[in-house]
Amino acid sequence: MNFVTAELAGEIFVGLMDGENRRILPLGKAAEMKEGINNFPSTMQECIALGDNFIQKVNSLQEWAANGEHEELYIPLDSAKLLAPIPRPAKNIFCVGKNYADHAIEMGSKEDIPEHIIVFTKAPTTVIGHDELVHHHKDITEQLDYEGELAVIIGKKGRGIKREEALEYVFGYTILNDITARDLQSRHKQFFIGKSLDTTCPMGPWIVHISAIDNPNKLEIKTKVNGEIRQSSNTENFIFPIEEIISDLSKGMTLEPGDIIATGTPAGVGKGFKPPRFLQPGDAMDITIEKIGTLSNKIETIDGI
Amino acid sequence: MNFVTAELAGEIFVGLMDGENRRILPLGKAAEMKEGINNFPSTMQECIALGDNFIQKVNSLQEWAANGEHEELYIPLDSAKLLAPIPRPAKNIFCVGKNYADHAIEMGSKEDIPEHIIVFTKAPTTVIGHDELVHHHKDITEQLDYEGELAVIIGKKGRGIKREEALEYVFGYTILNDITARDLQSRHKQFFIGKSLDTTCPMGPWIVHISAIDNPNKLEIKTKVNGEIRQSSNTENFIFPIEEIISDLSKGMTLEPGDIIATGTPAGVGKGFKPPRFLQPGDAMDITIEKIGTLSNKIETIDGI
Repeated sequence: MNFVTAELAGEIFVGLMDGENRRILPLGKAAEMKEGINNFPSTMQECIALGDNFIQKVNSLQEWAANGEHEELYIPLDSAKLLAPIPRPAKNIFCVGKNYADHAIEMGSKEDIPEHIIVFTKAPTTVIGHDELVHHHKDITEQLDYEGELAVIIGKKGRGIKREEALEYVFGYTILNDITARDLQSRHKQFFIGKSLDTTCPMGPWIVHISAIDNPNKLEIKTKVNGEIRQSSNTENFIFPIEEIISDLSKGMTLEPGDIIATGTPAGVGKGFKPPRFLQPGDAMDITIEKIGTLSNKIETIDGI
Repeated sequence: MNFVTAELAGEIFVGLMDGENRRILPLGKAAEMKEGINNFPSTMQECIALGDNFIQKVNSLQEWAANGEHEELYIPLDSAKLLAPIPRPAKNIFCVGKNYADHAIEMGSKEDIPEHIIVFTKAPTTVIGHDELVHHHKDITEQLDYEGELAVIIGKKGRGIKREEALEYVFGYTILNDITARDLQSRHKQFFIGKSLDTTCPMGPWIVHISAIDNPNKLEIKTKVNGEIRQSSNTENFIFPIEEIISDLSKGMTLEPGDIIATGTPAGVGKGFKPPRFLQPGDAMDITIEKIGTLSNKIETIDGI
């Protein structure tokens, strides 16, 4: 099950992808047609917070809609605009730094491979969806850089979560581009400022429910810039697998439904090249993760297109 | 004007302090009595987002209520429970690191005095109010430490805010205790984890409207632990004054009404003593800032009281 937040005729809704992701079943509208009233939450966060009830409702709506009698309900993917699956997170996005050894080394040396998870955050104002433009921020940075990452969406409130139970707290997975202004990142020491420029957190295109991914610690991940492969790795190379990230983060800090955890990026970022290859206006980025899909975004041109 | 978020008989409301802060005028109830309908926003964030309209409404309610005919409306401070003025921020709290030279030196050396602002964040799940208990987190940290700070509450949306216009974007000020697990802070490199344990962001007791404070960069600040003065400074010692923090933060990142910026702590934290004097269960902290008031919190005892 792939869940989207989408917009059609000014209305924002939560939908389920159907037919190899070519069309969307709008869940609120389907519930209204099936049950006579629209009692479906309007945001992805509220849906996630319903827990198992949400998945049961979706299963029943999907079955009901699949009988061929409600074809008019489905929205072709081309006619809706996909937003980030969670367009406005209720807190900053948690980001794990240096979670692939080869990336830690390209950013410094072997000394930079962490012994404990490193976590910083991105402001909620950074989030944009698939196919939306990333501002170039030319007046502020000369070193905009991409970071393809697997993101975990938390499904259930928890603190002190044990490693062996951690995946029970996951709702699903999506793709996230942790775009970073390298000059600001190093100038301001703590990463937050260099990580929080508006539009520097493309996310999507959808959330894949956890039931579709057996092992999130074994997924191929690839980032292309203008069609050229820059990052190519597998989440099996994580220093800290997802269970450990969730367990460590939740030590003393409550995780909540809808929380987003970006799990770190492999080697091949622009800063890792000699000379560095930072993003330029007009550049196209495509991040593909096995079993999820491809998140595509362009840097806006100087003319703003 | 001092604004509170308070709770009475299970209802949470925004109020205005009255009579030398001895009683609260509940703004929604006052509006309902004066105008026949309750069209007042129920959260501080929504109030702040109304901008000048909010202050105009409050002025008119205050005048209306002051004629002595509506005494039954006022709630004695003792009978309500004060919550944090913004009990659930819509994003992480922005925190400026090392904004007083003497604190930068006590945490390391003169080399640690920053040339550019250092910003990290605290999760919204850390926030508690005046007089609420701080968990001791004994299973996770042996080095809980206090940091008394002036916090700025943003009143208006803005990006690329000029230094000379920065204070126009401020709604008001409050007191914040940036409680920190020093062992986690250093173990995890980026500050976020050591700064984000549940209940480690006491805030309040109220927001003082900007109209009551001519110069936020010249306020006495004192922190006591169990009655003993540990921090005593003045915000005139800021390395980066508030105008510069707002201007720098908003370079490429949109600030929004209700955003909270903690401005850093002066020398005298527990870690600065030789040997260090970390917080213990039962310890009482009082942070006093000139023209605002005193924020008091205790560390819960091992027995949970």
